[in-house]
Amino acid sequence: MKSLLALGLTLLLGTALGAAPNVVVIYADDLGYGDLGVYGHPTIRTPHLDRMAAEGSRWTSFYSAAPVCTPSRAALLTGRHPLRSGTMSPRPRVFAERSLRGLPSEEITIAEMLKAEGYATAMVGKWHLGHMPGYLPPRQGFDEYFGLVSSNDHNKTYDSRKLGRKPAFGGPPELWDIPLMDGEEVVEKPAQQYTLTQRYTRRAVDFIERHPDRPFFLYFAHTFPHTPLFRSDGFAGRSDRGVYGDVIEELDWSVGQVLDALRANGLAENTLVIFSSDNGPWLPFLDHGGSAGLLREGKGSTWEGGMRVPGIFWMPGTVRPSVIRDMGSTLDVLPTVAAFTGATAPRDRALDGFDLSPALLRGEPSPRQEMLFYRAGELFAFRQGPHKIHFLTQTGYTEPQPTPHDPPALYHLEHDPSEKYDISAANAELVQRLAKLARQRDAELERGEDQLNHQSDGPVGVFTHPPVP
Amino acid sequence: MKSLLALGLTLLLGTALGAAPNVVVIYADDLGYGDLGVYGHPTIRTPHLDRMAAEGSRWTSFYSAAPVCTPSRAALLTGRHPLRSGTMSPRPRVFAERSLRGLPSEEITIAEMLKAEGYATAMVGKWHLGHMPGYLPPRQGFDEYFGLVSSNDHNKTYDSRKLGRKPAFGGPPELWDIPLMDGEEVVEKPAQQYTLTQRYTRRAVDFIERHPDRPFFLYFAHTFPHTPLFRSDGFAGRSDRGVYGDVIEELDWSVGQVLDALRANGLAENTLVIFSSDNGPWLPFLDHGGSAGLLREGKGSTWEGGMRVPGIFWMPGTVRPSVIRDMGSTLDVLPTVAAFTGATAPRDRALDGFDLSPALLRGEPSPRQEMLFYRAGELFAFRQGPHKIHFLTQTGYTEPQPTPHDPPALYHLEHDPSEKYDISAANAELVQRLAKLARQRDAELERGEDQLNHQSDGPVGVFTHPPVP
Repeated sequence: MKSLLALGLTLLLGTALGAAPNVVVIYADDLGYGDLGVYGHPTIRTPHLDRMAAEGSRWTSFYSAAPVCTPSRAALLTGRHPLRSGTMSPRPRVFAERSLRGLPSEEITIAEMLKAEGYATAMVGKWHLGHMPGYLPPRQGFDEYFGLVSSNDHNKTYDSRKLGRKPAFGGPPELWDIPLMDGEEVVEKPAQQYTLTQRYTRRAVDFIERHPDRPFFLYFAHTFPHTPLFRSDGFAGRSDRGVYGDVIEELDWSVGQVLDALRANGLAENTLVIFSSDNGPWLPFLDHGGSAGLLREGKGSTWEGGMRVPGIFWMPGTVRPSVIRDMGSTLDVLPTVAAFTGATAPRDRALDGFDLSPALLRGEPSPRQEMLFYRAGELFAFRQGPHKIHFLTQTGYTEPQPTPHDPPALYHLEHDPSEKYDISAANAELVQRLAKLARQRDAELERGEDQLNHQSDGPVGVFTHPPVP
Repeated sequence: MKSLLALGLTLLLGTALGAAPNVVVIYADDLGYGDLGVYGHPTIRTPHLDRMAAEGSRWTSFYSAAPVCTPSRAALLTGRHPLRSGTMSPRPRVFAERSLRGLPSEEITIAEMLKAEGYATAMVGKWHLGHMPGYLPPRQGFDEYFGLVSSNDHNKTYDSRKLGRKPAFGGPPELWDIPLMDGEEVVEKPAQQYTLTQRYTRRAVDFIERHPDRPFFLYFAHTFPHTPLFRSDGFAGRSDRGVYGDVIEELDWSVGQVLDALRANGLAENTLVIFSSDNGPWLPFLDHGGSAGLLREGKGSTWEGGMRVPGIFWMPGTVRPSVIRDMGSTLDVLPTVAAFTGATAPRDRALDGFDLSPALLRGEPSPRQEMLFYRAGELFAFRQGPHKIHFLTQTGYTEPQPTPHDPPALYHLEHDPSEKYDISAANAELVQRLAKLARQRDAELERGEDQLNHQSDGPVGVFTHPPVP
């Protein structure tokens, strides 16, 4: 029955759209829930994203699948919880210089799914799913790839303890000996980060312009606002919000360039564009980190600020201009893209995402009713409808150990989005029911082999590449 | 020179507008900075205010003059700091049942200023500037008045200690023996609060419809979302945000009714509408209180959440659709209204407001560069440009005593709107300069006789009126 409905929807979309639509996913790094004008920031200006939101669907309860980078990205690209692909681990929490593995090649990404349908595929930006041969984006369905293999603070060439406060902005790019890749080649090392957003954007626009007729998938994963912050000269001192604002305003400019390229090439009405972030703001960097707005905590945490992020869907004439208060997740991107394009989502494995098109096209309720919140592989919290229970809570970086809650703490997220008022005492039965359900979901979630704990003694793969000027 | 410019502006406006424009001020009670959709709330729906903001100027750094009710309202209506009119006091902080005085009749309100220009004037809603004969709205320039004389939790008929948790929502209206006034007559006591917003709105729309040709001033001061919360049956259970959301969504509906009445009567292009709130959210009421969004603290406090509030100006074709990140204040409403209408602002006394029309009409910088933050008559904080220093800090209700800061704490509000990172240590000279300037401004501010500390032993004036069914 479900697949018949899906087929009907695909046909309906096919009729309405004519050709198979293009898909663009724009993904920010460490952008907080409160960092865009349209999400309420008082001093950061984001006119292009604000317009995209006004013309599309803006979600106010949209979640990344994890509070840190690597597992979030694996989930976005596969539609599967990162524990299934072995990309969420107690330690380390992300792939780093010494990592020997990456997203397993058996995983099927959106790029692979769409490539099978004849799509041209490209990735621009930060990968962070493995940097050894066999784990780079071209091995996961991307015809083209231009970007940094991992976070822009990797391969440090300085001693943090000697430098005092971690550099969060600028300085010589040589402080981070990061390889910039084109395909599987290192084309620059260390990457010149000041101009990265400009160069990413040119490459993204170029890819769009090279495909006026053939359907394409573009995954544009920005390196920023992850620290160290860099922005081009044209954006220096632009924002009232300081350096962090300059970086966001350049990112917003970049989104405008992509949407303008679609419009200029007559592709806007036939391209689904999705904007989101991999996790919440990196709070220890003070004003060089972002803001989760009214939400509690940030990156690294399973409080809302760690995983609730901006989520905007845009396809003029197809996606209804709306504000959607139901739940959605980056886990839902793959199934939603499948519905929009008519591509076949993987059937030989468990998916954790939902097709959000009923909400996007017709304003129907979101099919997502639950969300699991894991930190480092452990179930910390669970949401069903408006209620969220916490078995464990921990700030992203300031609390060394989690605080257990037995019985679990309970918050009503629609009445109390800031998670201020624990209402578990008056709702013991509800807490018990939710806890049981959460444990059941946890037990059902099949763990793949941990890929993160395979590490060498020092940097490996492209991190060891000699300098490329 | 300044008055010549003002005259030029008035002439310019006069030419552009034809007739003298109408003025409507809509004022919410305890609505937080983060409580509207357009200010980023994830679950409260405010389509009418969102549209008003999109069509008008939305301010992201707009301040009430005080963190509690009475002094805020005195400042809004007079354009003068409440210390000048004696309406801000160490104790009590607002007029209550025993108060013998009110806003002194020598003070000149917006209503009086516009009445002198031939305007019809009306007030609908909460006054809270005195309830003895001689202090009611008709004595301050309002031809008509319909509303509650003070806060809707006054004249309690129950013992808070016996009832346990303060009732924040509903219950029998008889728990608060509040008089509802029409002119200087008590027309209902206790006021039936469930239908108050509906009846306020009908009266406001009726006033607009009765003045198709004569210029009018309407001051519509809502009773809610001050607790106890009440909403009409039509809004019960409407909002995902619960009862508080229901109340805000009814308030938003009311704003829509007013704007629709202006449109339907061909008055929209000739009416300046201003929306704001008297102070931040009343946090001790948990989810029956509002949210200051990303701002720190709420009502009662001089942290940003106590005094930074929504601020929206609307006059299609005249006020530029824009988001204004400069500072503005409810203190600026009187001078701005004077500029728009060509009325003569009082010249025989000090005003503390600025004419914001250059920012509203032409996107020029706001003339307001400074803001003073007083609590109970004492200077707690001072902002100049992006910098705010705190001599004293105190939460609205949970800290019994203020914490002194010597040297003052310093926050950069544009980089750090949440006041998280005290940067005084690295900016000693700046702190010193700002502290000196703040002390100078404080010394310049002439104190009027304290009106609040004149109290009887029990309720006086209309609070003692017998029941009116």
